Amino acid sequence: MAKEITKLMDYRSDVRVLDATLRDGGLVNDFYFTDEFVKDLYLANVRAGVDYMEFGYKASRELFDESKFGKWKFCKDDDIRAVVGDNNTDLKISVMADVGRCDYKHDIIKKSDSPIDMIRVATYLNTIPAAMKMIEDAAAKGYDTTCNIMAISNAQERDMEAALNMLAQTPVNCLYIVDSYGSLYPEQIARIVDFYLNVAAKYGKKVGIHAHNNQQLAFANTIEAVGDGADWLDATYANMGRGAGNCAMELLLGFLRNPKYNVYPVIQFVEKHMNRLKEEGVMWGYDVQYLLTGLLNQHPRTAIKFTKDKRKDYSEFYKELVVQDE
Amino acid sequence: MAKEITKLMDYRSDVRVLDATLRDGGLVNDFYFTDEFVKDLYLANVRAGVDYMEFGYKASRELFDESKFGKWKFCKDDDIRAVVGDNNTDLKISVMADVGRCDYKHDIIKKSDSPIDMIRVATYLNTIPAAMKMIEDAAAKGYDTTCNIMAISNAQERDMEAALNMLAQTPVNCLYIVDSYGSLYPEQIARIVDFYLNVAAKYGKKVGIHAHNNQQLAFANTIEAVGDGADWLDATYANMGRGAGNCAMELLLGFLRNPKYNVYPVIQFVEKHMNRLKEEGVMWGYDVQYLLTGLLNQHPRTAIKFTKDKRKDYSEFYKELVVQDE
Repeated sequence: MAKEITKLMDYRSDVRVLDATLRDGGLVNDFYFTDEFVKDLYLANVRAGVDYMEFGYKASRELFDESKFGKWKFCKDDDIRAVVGDNNTDLKISVMADVGRCDYKHDIIKKSDSPIDMIRVATYLNTIPAAMKMIEDAAAKGYDTTCNIMAISNAQERDMEAALNMLAQTPVNCLYIVDSYGSLYPEQIARIVDFYLNVAAKYGKKVGIHAHNNQQLAFANTIEAVGDGADWLDATYANMGRGAGNCAMELLLGFLRNPKYNVYPVIQFVEKHMNRLKEEGVMWGYDVQYLLTGLLNQHPRTAIKFTKDKRKDYSEFYKELVVQDE
Repeated sequence: MAKEITKLMDYRSDVRVLDATLRDGGLVNDFYFTDEFVKDLYLANVRAGVDYMEFGYKASRELFDESKFGKWKFCKDDDIRAVVGDNNTDLKISVMADVGRCDYKHDIIKKSDSPIDMIRVATYLNTIPAAMKMIEDAAAKGYDTTCNIMAISNAQERDMEAALNMLAQTPVNCLYIVDSYGSLYPEQIARIVDFYLNVAAKYGKKVGIHAHNNQQLAFANTIEAVGDGADWLDATYANMGRGAGNCAMELLLGFLRNPKYNVYPVIQFVEKHMNRLKEEGVMWGYDVQYLLTGLLNQHPRTAIKFTKDKRKDYSEFYKELVVQDE
């Protein structure tokens, strides 16, 4: 018997849903979203009762050429304000800042002068001290913060434990499990949530989950995590996100029992915008190449290239992966 | 903590994988598979270590016009033998027989004269006595049998319990959980497997699962079930099956740890045949309309019509479903 019967018929009021469509979805169209798309997404999130909307990255304009990306790669405060005005809604605004790819000291201003509510710091396990600096900087400026530890499916648990104990000393609000390779099964998610919660609960931190759909498990892993005690849940409209994409918002809001959530505005947005993106040639979503990198616990970059090259020779790709693995 | 740690790193040798591509997939192309497709599928299953291949239905030729369906709607013994010869392999052959839609007394001959190894009897909860007659008939003729109880997501547990206790008196080998509407979550699957096992184990019967992918949970529900003690698992190549399709064979064999299973022949088959079927206009797989019927625990027929009509107005469809529900 996996869980207490009917545990998920009720809801925990601590659960938070974060829409990462612009941020993770931006990775597949270089952040070139129309203004209408972004405005409609904001309104849909407000109406759907979504808790956070992530507008994109605060990427370094020294490292990345502004002319080669849409504006949500950089998330200037004025660009956000042009969409949300004073944001007199219950929807909070987040941006992601990558360790080593963000001029956070300069580009992240005081919260009192910004429409942004929360900074999400994305890090690999080998750059935790730098992530801590960024968290402390953002918290000192007045923001809520999360730390999203990427690619944990090939991390060792003792290293993760050390990292979590370090991060728990910072003002961070939430420690995120990120299944970057889409390689984890629900059974493993259960174990990892438990592992994270052991540290997080001691320090009053929340645990979050960001899943990828390489094995058609992004939604399943997200609801496994919430059943195990993770409170912050990432999702994207129509699964839009890098490679095989993420947990679909329309699935997640259909599942959650808190009456404040409403799936209908999500369905309306998907109808108006998401099929059109696909028709325009933007590519994401489950396919065999992503299953294979997920199964082999590898970064999806080879599968993304396979997709971009419009290849369909899955068995040749399988051989490439297995040979590369030797 | 959901499950015993590492429970699924090992394997139970009792687990059986059944390929239902021709049978459930046949529902979306009226069973018009080419002979090459069927032969290649048979060879792929043999090489992949799949335990059973289901060729289709034993449908009544009085009720269904033979000229309007491909031959796997009827699964004549000679048609199967043309593919498998004497089937000197470890792969066993099954067909499905629906209560009320099969002339089983006449069309199912003695096993000793047939290439078929197993008869799977599909029934709704309100036709259990008729299913029992069919099971007894098939067993008397020498076949292994399963009973697949469809549409259990809107059945009451006391009714299911009565049905299972009746079926357990027959020679049936396996009692199948069938999530016809794709509306069940893993937490519910865990509960239902437990419920089935309580009866099945007492009588030495196995428990199986046949999942649908309306909420991108067919694979997740299948591995939830195997983790909970279900032994017989249905899958189809590239998820092919009615509506949103089934649990993908390539996902399932990638997951299972028994070294006898090999995912590579499945990948090869998918590459050679499955994208081509889609290009030819055969339609199946997850989309918002299937999510909605799943979420509302309804038969997918309205979503299938929406798909056939090439509609994309999801929000209008949502309203139709909700109004219809009043």
